[in-house]
Amino acid sequence: MASGASLLVFGVTGLGEIAPGDDLASLIAEQAALIDGDVVVVTQKIVSKAEGRTVRIDPSDPDAKRALAESEAVRVLRRRDDLVITETRHGFVCANSGVDLSNVADGWAALLPVEPDRSARRLRDGIRARTGVEVAVVISDTFGRAWRQGVTDVAIGCAGIRAVIEFAAERVATEICVVDEVASAADLVMGKARGVPVAVVRGLDAAFLGEGAVTEEVVRPHGEDLFR
Amino acid sequence: MASGASLLVFGVTGLGEIAPGDDLASLIAEQAALIDGDVVVVTQKIVSKAEGRTVRIDPSDPDAKRALAESEAVRVLRRRDDLVITETRHGFVCANSGVDLSNVADGWAALLPVEPDRSARRLRDGIRARTGVEVAVVISDTFGRAWRQGVTDVAIGCAGIRAVIEFAAERVATEICVVDEVASAADLVMGKARGVPVAVVRGLDAAFLGEGAVTEEVVRPHGEDLFR
Repeated sequence: MASGASLLVFGVTGLGEIAPGDDLASLIAEQAALIDGDVVVVTQKIVSKAEGRTVRIDPSDPDAKRALAESEAVRVLRRRDDLVITETRHGFVCANSGVDLSNVADGWAALLPVEPDRSARRLRDGIRARTGVEVAVVISDTFGRAWRQGVTDVAIGCAGIRAVIEFAAERVATEICVVDEVASAADLVMGKARGVPVAVVRGLDAAFLGEGAVTEEVVRPHGEDLFR
Repeated sequence: MASGASLLVFGVTGLGEIAPGDDLASLIAEQAALIDGDVVVVTQKIVSKAEGRTVRIDPSDPDAKRALAESEAVRVLRRRDDLVITETRHGFVCANSGVDLSNVADGWAALLPVEPDRSARRLRDGIRARTGVEVAVVISDTFGRAWRQGVTDVAIGCAGIRAVIEFAAERVATEICVVDEVASAADLVMGKARGVPVAVVRGLDAAFLGEGAVTEEVVRPHGEDLFR
């Protein structure tokens, strides 16, 4: 017997090429028939583009990307070949401080949003203002992991959804990072063609919704981190 | 405009309490109306129970769980308080070697399956034999991560689905760990009540299906690992 809980995950396209100053909330609201409780997952790349978080870079200079990544970092954890694992100002540990040359115009690089949780709140508020619909927003990016090959999408910002939720099973409490799981679920409809910059996760347990923030709930404080 | 790709994720219940020797493939096939291309995500706990991978433990002995975790490990990476981060024989880096006292009978602990990829193949083959339906199987477990708070579900075994898939975007190739994203998506319908031990992800891009193995594709070789 299938249980009551079920999710629908679908991609949203048709937003066009995003430029600085574009009103992402309006573009998304026009392309997706959103309903209350939807979680709108937006890839970091289009948020950064709309917020003007792109910079010129010389793609023929092998040191330019590393220098840019280091300028976006508060700390370098590891270096190998052209890869640098850094900690960003937000506290994220990722490759190249999230600096990314894919899916941006040649000669440009995209940086992470300055405050991704605030970006998410702005999108959530914008969608509410334009449609009257109360959605949650997750801003996703693609991070590597220690010990496991292959990257997955995780949340770098959120609004209207709790980032980490504690479940009490028998004798054991588990804190699940729901927003990272949402970002991963969304990537399954985005991943095959990077022309899908937004996805909707519909049907998520309403208990997961509420105020949340990735930087406060997901970034592990230094003193509690065994691998930094 | 919603894009063509969409996923349905739903939980499967009604399997009852699982005991050693139970035929999980039959139980799942009876409870879910599976169709070709479905990805059946099965939590490690019930696979371990069906395979008899449970051992007695004295829950009042604070050292018993740690001793058991260390006996299941090939290496201890970190220790703090009652937490031990180990590398298992499979190469997984996780808390307590995956030894788990939740959702098992009092006085018992569940260990990871000996060969989770083989367990997944057996389930896939069993479902095919009983129903004629060609599904993929992912065996999921809940792991912590470096640098990020909260746990997420990841894949520890798979069959009928490629674990890591390379996508070529402009100028940049990305290897996505699809099976971990599938495990995370499934957890969103399992997580709130640990009484949902199986979920189905329906509608996954057929290009993701094929032969795959977590231990070969996802476990990062020591020489390539910057954090071990």
